[in-house]
Amino acid sequence: MERPYLLFLGDATDDLSIKMARGVVSWRRSWCIGQYCLEGCKAKLPIPEFDIEEAATAGAKTMVVGVVNAGGVIAENWVDALVKALAAGMDVASGMHSRLSDIPEVREAASNFGRQLFDIRRPDREFAIGTGAKRLGKRLLPVGTDCSVGKMYTALAIEQEMLGRGVKADFRATGQTGVLIAGGGIAVDAVVADFISGAIEWLSPDNDPDHWDVIEGQGSLFHPSFAGVSLGLLHGAQPDALVLCHEPTRTHMRALESWPLPELSECIAANLEAARLTNPDVRCVGASIDTSRFTEAEAEDYLRETEAALGIVCVDPLRTGVARIVDELV
Amino acid sequence: MERPYLLFLGDATDDLSIKMARGVVSWRRSWCIGQYCLEGCKAKLPIPEFDIEEAATAGAKTMVVGVVNAGGVIAENWVDALVKALAAGMDVASGMHSRLSDIPEVREAASNFGRQLFDIRRPDREFAIGTGAKRLGKRLLPVGTDCSVGKMYTALAIEQEMLGRGVKADFRATGQTGVLIAGGGIAVDAVVADFISGAIEWLSPDNDPDHWDVIEGQGSLFHPSFAGVSLGLLHGAQPDALVLCHEPTRTHMRALESWPLPELSECIAANLEAARLTNPDVRCVGASIDTSRFTEAEAEDYLRETEAALGIVCVDPLRTGVARIVDELV
Repeated sequence: MERPYLLFLGDATDDLSIKMARGVVSWRRSWCIGQYCLEGCKAKLPIPEFDIEEAATAGAKTMVVGVVNAGGVIAENWVDALVKALAAGMDVASGMHSRLSDIPEVREAASNFGRQLFDIRRPDREFAIGTGAKRLGKRLLPVGTDCSVGKMYTALAIEQEMLGRGVKADFRATGQTGVLIAGGGIAVDAVVADFISGAIEWLSPDNDPDHWDVIEGQGSLFHPSFAGVSLGLLHGAQPDALVLCHEPTRTHMRALESWPLPELSECIAANLEAARLTNPDVRCVGASIDTSRFTEAEAEDYLRETEAALGIVCVDPLRTGVARIVDELV
Repeated sequence: MERPYLLFLGDATDDLSIKMARGVVSWRRSWCIGQYCLEGCKAKLPIPEFDIEEAATAGAKTMVVGVVNAGGVIAENWVDALVKALAAGMDVASGMHSRLSDIPEVREAASNFGRQLFDIRRPDREFAIGTGAKRLGKRLLPVGTDCSVGKMYTALAIEQEMLGRGVKADFRATGQTGVLIAGGGIAVDAVVADFISGAIEWLSPDNDPDHWDVIEGQGSLFHPSFAGVSLGLLHGAQPDALVLCHEPTRTHMRALESWPLPELSECIAANLEAARLTNPDVRCVGASIDTSRFTEAEAEDYLRETEAALGIVCVDPLRTGVARIVDELV
């Protein structure tokens, strides 16, 4: 996808709905020329606002749909904006389950104006069945007690810390926001089930012995909707190192009100046991805790107590950074 | 799919390649009018041979591609036969990864002659995300130490035994051969990864409290290529009862020469632990062993010793039947 991006926020209803756009701005600010919002948009990013013509004149190459709505589909009242962006000479990218090219007006506009449509959530290639064969190089995978507990953020922070120390490292994206940030990757939850681990083996091939692939984790072995994805990803990643991610104020599994979260120690044990199938030497090198809902004092207490209880380094990537986790590795 | 079926064996190279056709004949003999083979076909079924015109005259409604080749695709030298079947008034069904409708001659013939193409491996509907919510009725799931260790056969034998005792039961197919035998179901390995457990929840909905869904298992939690499918299926099935399936002469995991099989007790423990996420009351009620490579005496010894070691009923569905497993349930 050509850069810079114009981030399209549509008529976003709240801050959570523009999580994808916010992720791109947080990690790749220089790739984002600005945002474009429709009337009634209730969330904004800390970057300039443009209309489509202004953005095109300023050099925007791809308009990225950086918002999700309840249905996970392209809303009808967004179609005009997508067509306008194509007419103005931009490509359009979306991370929705529904395909851009399934919308007749968008498909025709792309064809008429000679522009490309990127459905980040739809794999654009076929994968082989996973083999479990050992690959060269080192791999780290964040795993979670639940969905949306900071696995992508943790992976990006660890990549950044490694690169800052001169360690060879690559973030390997497995979700749509990650793909936008990395400029490539696979939305693994959209891969055909038979090829989950094979897709991850393709994503993280042989590398230098001292190179780290920091692979974005997905879901949780304890989430009844998505654990199959998490296990296939774990086996395909064959990680040397796991980092447990957790949000301590979460009262139930995401979107499932009656489901408690697993204990941290139980979650580490289950992930290590499963990971040993493709890497018997795997170890859990730390925990990455999202303490954003705690005061500074509460966060300090929680990290200290959890570190003592689990016997591994506990950090919050935002408050403390991830340097102590990287210390465990290099 | 309309019945009876004409089973197309192509130029099958060996007995293993017509496993799908053999499964349909074993379990649904009355649905199969006969077989049609090309020159050089090296495997045959114990049913009448027809050419396409004869089969159509005899009343065949659907020609089923019951053979697989190395690539898992429709071979070029099969296309003529598929077109002839369509011209003779039959529909055509295939369980290959590649789509029948992607072959121009086949697509055109189906359109010209007003016939239907069934790609059993391609889900023809969308599924919701799994919820893990408890459903009414009872569920049994065979799980395996490996792929191809008798999970479908075991499920069908248990369904048959239950129906013979007047117990309400349904076999729920999750693979292409199973779908042909059941006349419906889902090839779960072809579902998009995000929807594995959701697809199984759809396949096995609420039912009478004393009704058993006997759900076809897939893969193995210990197979590094497919464990994601197996785990999503396990969570979606929320089984009350597991049956462990095993083939005791297997020296390595299917298609992976350097991978040992898990210990039976380890495999039971891992499946029970994972299954408890969606059904805390799950138990393993027996083991189903494929002893076909043993002599009668070896088989007896193996079943007796394994039963003593594991403390659960051990049967071979072909040699001993599955009555003792059903005794544990009803």
